[in-house]
Amino acid sequence: MTAQIIDGKAFAGDLRAKVAAMVPAFRAKAGRAPGLAVVLVGEDPASQVYVRNKHKMTIEAGMESFEHRLPADTSQDALIALVHQLNADPSVDGILVQLPLPRQIDESAVLAAIDPDKDVDGFHVVNVGRLSTGMAGYVPCTPLGCVMLLKDRLGDLSGKDAVVIGRSNIVGKPMAQLLLAENCTVTVAHSRTANLPEVVRRADIVVAAVGRPEMVKGDWIKPGAIVIDVGINRVPGAGPGKTKLVGDVDFAEAVEVAGAITPVPGGVGPMTIAVLLRNTLVAAHRLAGVPYEKGAI
Amino acid sequence: MTAQIIDGKAFAGDLRAKVAAMVPAFRAKAGRAPGLAVVLVGEDPASQVYVRNKHKMTIEAGMESFEHRLPADTSQDALIALVHQLNADPSVDGILVQLPLPRQIDESAVLAAIDPDKDVDGFHVVNVGRLSTGMAGYVPCTPLGCVMLLKDRLGDLSGKDAVVIGRSNIVGKPMAQLLLAENCTVTVAHSRTANLPEVVRRADIVVAAVGRPEMVKGDWIKPGAIVIDVGINRVPGAGPGKTKLVGDVDFAEAVEVAGAITPVPGGVGPMTIAVLLRNTLVAAHRLAGVPYEKGAI
Repeated sequence: MTAQIIDGKAFAGDLRAKVAAMVPAFRAKAGRAPGLAVVLVGEDPASQVYVRNKHKMTIEAGMESFEHRLPADTSQDALIALVHQLNADPSVDGILVQLPLPRQIDESAVLAAIDPDKDVDGFHVVNVGRLSTGMAGYVPCTPLGCVMLLKDRLGDLSGKDAVVIGRSNIVGKPMAQLLLAENCTVTVAHSRTANLPEVVRRADIVVAAVGRPEMVKGDWIKPGAIVIDVGINRVPGAGPGKTKLVGDVDFAEAVEVAGAITPVPGGVGPMTIAVLLRNTLVAAHRLAGVPYEKGAI
Repeated sequence: MTAQIIDGKAFAGDLRAKVAAMVPAFRAKAGRAPGLAVVLVGEDPASQVYVRNKHKMTIEAGMESFEHRLPADTSQDALIALVHQLNADPSVDGILVQLPLPRQIDESAVLAAIDPDKDVDGFHVVNVGRLSTGMAGYVPCTPLGCVMLLKDRLGDLSGKDAVVIGRSNIVGKPMAQLLLAENCTVTVAHSRTANLPEVVRRADIVVAAVGRPEMVKGDWIKPGAIVIDVGINRVPGAGPGKTKLVGDVDFAEAVEVAGAITPVPGGVGPMTIAVLLRNTLVAAHRLAGVPYEKGAI
């Protein structure tokens, strides 16, 4: 058996196009475009690439993009002052502070300063609580993107056995909450799990989010299961000095067993920015008081 | 094999005694007793019994008990005004609004009005988010009591397979978060779970919190597993007009298979008020700026 490949890049492109298609109607009703503010502190090269892509795709979707680049030695107070300014700015619907932040800044203090109703990354403690209790809020982009891919593939997820490997606040825990809200039977496994292969083998849906290259082997996968690989790990490639990206799943093995699988790259990765734009569109509707059809995208 | 019976009543009594033993030192440092305010709206008989017990045990622990009884036709605005008054009252460390509330009042609006730092019931969305992300906050009393009973029995829970049956905001979901924080591999099962007996049979720790009398049968339990029964269901008893209390677990069957089990009544039930007093003691220390030794009780 050879798995179907879940084309996250194409799905993300479609999602961005759907967002873009909804922007003109919003503009007509609200008299302004949805606005996303991205704050980058310092010169981390990966973060710079990511922020550049966000900017480009925000513009492509017809939204306003506000970039704030601050030097690496920015103080926590100065960063929080900027966040407060963005909270108060009516042209800003979504605020994203690119992580990681330099050492002198307490990330949790900065995230706590963001207005929960502009927290399109879904990391604020209020949005974490809203997700758990089933209230409307904002859900972290990567796990929400994973659920979109799963629902696109499976339709109704109700009653499926899902295993989430990893329990980070950014992926694993919100992923578990989302799958529970979709009526999956959800198991959260992690580094302390005894007999991880056996736990994974029970699952109709496997979400790997641990950051360990190719850890999940082919014989851990139940034949026909759907495998969502959130890992993005850079490892030595073919030839001296070369590197390549691999996921948390041993793709070559798993593709022979799974029913469907996301590749790395080109699977979950492209979903994150697309969902960020979707969350910003939702935030704009809520903040401007323009009705947003539930489940529109 | 016959299971050991977990005596929650005795454990809760010890816990209340430990709380009481810490009150004099707090009083000496803060110049006042810890204070718990309980608000009861209407005449629900079960709520009245519960509030009376809370009052009695609060006093017995050497704390101040502030009871507020409001008529059944109290408006939401009036109730929220009282909550704001209690938020501002420096002699009040913990606020508990007894649920359920009369129909004209939106429970979520009232819970949201409680200062999260006085929310000793742990139902405020901020405390839900804090629990999920590992920040200090307040955890709902019943699931925290269950974890205390488990740790008392097993010591380290790390690596245990735990199944939580039920996904309520009050028990199931916080229970899952707590077991995850204790490094269990946690599965949340519920009404949509396919083959529930098989899922339960995997577990070293079973927590039943569904509210269905004697639903969990003996042959669902792995021999030697620890069974925590959160259910309290009133069912017809022996003889006409008689009733009795049973849990969500078929005790007579499960006691023959489990390693240890909580009875109903006398298991989890008595823990709730004891943990409420413990949470109030913690809140008093935090609000008064008196150091509380982490994990003291």
